[in-house]
Order: sequence, then structure tokens, then C-alpha cells
Amino acid sequence: MYPKTILHLIECFKKFPGIGEKTAERLALSCLELDDETIETFTASLKNSKTKIKKCQKCGNLSEDDLCDICKDESRNKEILCVVEESKNIILFEKVGTFNGIYHVLGGLISPLDGVNPEDINISSLIKRIEEEKIKEVILAVKPTVEGETTALYIRKLLEGKDVIISKIAHGIPMGADMDYIDSLTLEIALSERSPIS
Amino acid sequence: MYPKTILHLIECFKKFPGIGEKTAERLALSCLELDDETIETFTASLKNSKTKIKKCQKCGNLSEDDLCDICKDESRNKEILCVVEESKNIILFEKVGTFNGIYHVLGGLISPLDGVNPEDINISSLIKRIEEEKIKEVILAVKPTVEGETTALYIRKLLEGKDVIISKIAHGIPMGADMDYIDSLTLEIALSERSPIS
Repeated sequence: MYPKTILHLIECFKKFPGIGEKTAERLALSCLELDDETIETFTASLKNSKTKIKKCQKCGNLSEDDLCDICKDESRNKEILCVVEESKNIILFEKVGTFNGIYHVLGGLISPLDGVNPEDINISSLIKRIEEEKIKEVILAVKPTVEGETTALYIRKLLEGKDVIISKIAHGIPMGADMDYIDSLTLEIALSERSPIS
Repeated sequence: MYPKTILHLIECFKKFPGIGEKTAERLALSCLELDDETIETFTASLKNSKTKIKKCQKCGNLSEDDLCDICKDESRNKEILCVVEESKNIILFEKVGTFNGIYHVLGGLISPLDGVNPEDINISSLIKRIEEEKIKEVILAVKPTVEGETTALYIRKLLEGKDVIISKIAHGIPMGADMDYIDSLTLEIALSERSPIS
């Protein structure tokens, strides 16, 4: 019923996660309202996303060069390394702005049920980096799920006996949250990891 | 923080209605997962949306030719014309599949407060079509808002004395709705437009 071009656009938008038939239709029709410049940037960037974007050879972050901006940045503290699951997690940390160390992207979490074993994610390169780059502290910043905890535990085991501080980001009640809505597991963790008021 | 290509994609996605910073970021990152064929179709269709898609010279529907598929279809009843606000409304009617007449897209509704006057939408071409194409029935299928009612009233006035049946789609309680959630205006209309059970 729609012209072919619109049907193609709908099909393309439907490939994105979380976009259903209705939203795809709405987005496809909105394309008709975009100005020429946006269409130009959009199509060029889509093509570049396939050709220009690669993974930083050092940390696995998204980059257009062999090394990402963070690994290239001389002002960063190269002795503290923050381990994250995906490269988009790096953006979250960078938005906070208080962390000045470097990162390592695992590209997944250990999950034997889903067929993801330690050798499927970037753990061996992490261990190699820690040794070669003389990292002093490794911060494990993976999400607090079974897979996250398993991955953290596995990395901790591999680093046992090595001269490196291993820490993990704090889990507890999020800032500004209403106590009524806190689940009991979070409350349990928050209670057991309580700290004296200084 | 993101590579330029990703930043450009985020900016493009943010131009779509209802897409904020977070969603744009998610969609832009999802572009990296699209296969080559999808990227190809996507970029081609985006370009085509600017060049190939035009409005049907007769009814205003979206089309890749001078006349849209519906206006070109000889099997349609050319004596019944359904007036809609936007071309996407046509798709809704076509999905129902019971209407076999033709359409006319107004391209907006009269709304003096927003600076939309009768001459800004396709009303004069509608009147001309009704006269020239010997339309027997005009169905006003605009939404039941102040703007919709104003537009319907205006068209009705212009057609006064002309040999054409003017009708409007029924307003009332939607099928399958729970009576508890019906607003009082809808209930009032549903009550005043009640029909005997045959």
C-alpha cells in the first residue's frame, strides 16, 4: 500500500531492537520530512559505520583509528584500568567525568548457558595488558548479575598472587531512590556493605 | 567521546519525532550490527525518499508516480470519495479492506490558532474534484477534534446545495473497550447517535 521506498524504510527500521511495525512506519514516514543535509549525513554515516568504525586494538573501545581517543590520551592515568562489558559502558563513565584511568572492553560476560565461555570474551588480552602495562589497580565494573559476578570471580582467580589491586564498583541503593521500591537483594547488599559515617 | 560517525548517527536519529538522546544513542550503536545488505537498502531508500516520493497529483497520497496506485486502480469505485487528513490515514482504511472508493488527502486540518487557514490545505482541489469527477458521496474521515470538526463543517458549507451525499465516519465507543474507561464526551456522542437494534 505504501510506495516501495517507504516499505523498504519500514523494513530497515524494523531491524533495530525495540522497534516494531507501528514505530517503524512512523519513523519511515518521518524520513520524508528530513532536510537534504540530514539525509546526506545519515547515509554517509550509515556507510561509515560499516567501513570506518573498528575496535581499538588496545582496549576494544569503538574507534575510527587503530587506537581510541582514550588510549591515545597521554594525560590519562595508565595505571588504573576499568573493566567493562561493552564499549557503550565507557561513555557512561566518561559522562561522570571523575575517572581518569583507562578501560578494557570484555565484549560480553561469561555465561555457559548461552555458550559464552571465558575464551569467547577478551579476558586473555586483559591479563596480558595487566602484566605488560604494569597496571596497579583493576576496577571490575560489570553489572551485578549472575553472569557479571561469574566473570568478576573468574578474573579475580586469574589475577591471584599478582601484584595488582582488584576492586569492584560499589553496589547498593541508588542515589535518590525511594526505599519503598528497593528490592530485597539490593537492600541485603547495601546492608552488608554498610560503611561508618565519617 | 564516541567516534564521529556514531555522533553523526546520534544527531540524525534525534531529528525523528519521539526519539530522545538515549534512544538515539541506542539506535546509532545498533547500526553497527546491521548487515551490509540492510545498510545498502537503508541508504538507497533514504536517498529515494527525497527524490522518488512525490504526492499523487489527483488525491495527494504518497506515490512514486504521478498518480498513486489507488487512483490508477480501475476496479475502485470512483464515485465515493473519502476525505482524510494525512496520507498515512489511507493505509489504515486500506488495512480494513472494506472501502473500495477513492481518497483525498487534505494535508492538514483548519486551525486558525496555528495559522492554518482553509486555503492552506487541499480543500479547493477537493471541491473541484467533487464537481469534475461527478462524485456521488463524500465521506469525511477526519479526527473528532475541534480542528477536525471545523474542517468538516467548512467542507459541508462549501458543498451545500450541490448534488452530493456528505457523510462522516461514526463516532462512539470503540470495539472491545471497557465501559469504565470511556470518557464522558465519547459516551455523550455514543448515546445521542444510538441506533435501533435491527
